[in-house]
Amino acid sequence: HPSDSARPSNVQELHVYEMNERDRGSPAYLRLSQKSVNSLGDLVPFSNKLYTGDLQKRVGITAGICVLIENKPEKKGDRYEAIYSFYFGDYGHISVQGAYLTYETTYLAVTGGSGVFEGAYGQVKLQQIVFPFKLFYTFYLKGIKELPEELLGKPVEPNPSVEPSPAAKACEPSATIANFTN
Amino acid sequence: HPSDSARPSNVQELHVYEMNERDRGSPAYLRLSQKSVNSLGDLVPFSNKLYTGDLQKRVGITAGICVLIENKPEKKGDRYEAIYSFYFGDYGHISVQGAYLTYETTYLAVTGGSGVFEGAYGQVKLQQIVFPFKLFYTFYLKGIKELPEELLGKPVEPNPSVEPSPAAKACEPSATIANFTN
Amino acid sequence: HPSDSARPSNVQELHVYEMNERDRGSPAYLRLSQKSVNSLGDLVPFSNKLYTGDLQKRVGITAGICVLIENKPEKKGDRYEAIYSFYFGDYGHISVQGAYLTYETTYLAVTGGSGVFEGAYGQVKLQQIVFPFKLFYTFYLKGIKELPEELLGKPVEPNPSVEPSPAAKACEPSATIANFTN
Repeated sequence: HPSDSARPSNVQELHVYEMNERDRGSPAYLRLSQKSVNSLGDLVPFSNKLYTGDLQKRVGITAGICVLIENKPEKKGDRYEAIYSFYFGDYGHISVQGAYLTYETTYLAVTGGSGVFEGAYGQVKLQQIVFPFKLFYTFYLKGIKELPEELLGKPVEPNPSVEPSPAAKACEPSATIANFTN
Repeated sequence: HPSDSARPSNVQELHVYEMNERDRGSPAYLRLSQKSVNSLGDLVPFSNKLYTGDLQKRVGITAGICVLIENKPEKKGDRYEAIYSFYFGDYGHISVQGAYLTYETTYLAVTGGSGVFEGAYGQVKLQQIVFPFKLFYTFYLKGIKELPEELLGKPVEPNPSVEPSPAAKACEPSATIANFTN
Repeated sequence: HPSDSARPSNVQELHVYEMNERDRGSPAYLRLSQKSVNSLGDLVPFSNKLYTGDLQKRVGITAGICVLIENKPEKKGDRYEAIYSFYFGDYGHISVQGAYLTYETTYLAVTGGSGVFEGAYGQVKLQQIVFPFKLFYTFYLKGIKELPEELLGKPVEPNPSVEPSPAAKACEPSATIANFTN
């Protein structure tokens, strides 16, 4: 059935870690509200590093913007509307949009993609491990062909001490995907 | 046919009211163009309240940003590019993008969703009732399972005097959806 | 088969030129990083003109925002995260998101659309012809019905001297689509 094979609706899970290694000048907190507490009006462009879920390979970066929606003193945190993409070198990218709460796991929408992610839809679970430096994502992807093996290693269980392998952190050729995004 | 059942392509209509009750510090008009008339360069983060189309239940909030594209003196209004989401408590969210014209009805793209809106696509009609405080939306959603009954009450015909029911406005438990977004 | 006919998964190519004719006050480079070199924190709202690939008709505008992610001195250029829409008058619009590199061709995600583009998905190739004034796009669209004939003229091969036809540039009625966006 050509149409179904062209747009599979089975779910593929994909795990990645997003790490802020404090070497990209990110995030840029723009306090445009001009208020002393985080407030609507503040904008936060950001870009962090991306590793495979097994932390053995550097794959690329995240890139986008968070719109501060509301400070939640009772949660000691913030609600953001997040609009960003995940870059996977030659494999392409995935775009997402939804809530980023600094105090709680959320699900964002997968809005599309390019390359092997062309036509992707579904959602992604965002888990904060160490605010705001380590995040763990589980994509539930539909609409795409079988994902490349090297992206599908067994994920390291999220915990505050997770670190990419030294080879991945150093971007050694054996520990990156092809033309990893930087 | 498993693929079709997984991604229905029938259209479901969903009506919601977006209300600015002036208690969320929204919108934050950022006059970054530094011009006296609204101009490209201005950005407008915003977040308003969302009610069911029958105005009997508070469901959540909108959250996102409008990018001022052009002031239209002949229309006494503005063109914005709007990028935002609609939050429905435990049910999840819908992300949209497209034109917001302060003087005319527009259709925006549904770019995705989470929860019961996972995999949503289609478009949404935006009708302004009282600028900029009351808006009425008709979603034409595809790609999702049958929507929850409580979201599908008969919508109140849009008119300038529409108000949520007092119980919904007060967020009484009987007049909210589960864990309504705030 | 009703579901397949409702959401075709064949690919349709659509070519458009985006032209900055320096009469829309675009782009608005907001140097919010307050750094002398382009840096994370800078935002660039923009809106340019859109012509059919054969350059015979003015169709509308682009509208959206670029988020500066990183200056690449070795490439003498910049990486942006681009979030914008393409407006086609009465035909509706297409929303996209992905990387805009000032020094290299990229593919962005089609995240949705309205009108004849309702339900669109796929990707779009962005080719820079003359930075930052002339760009050529090839959309690979799925999920939509057959595109209108007048959008499908044979595209002019991209080169630095391409110009819209004088009639299209002057927005003469015979050289615009119905209610072209402006």
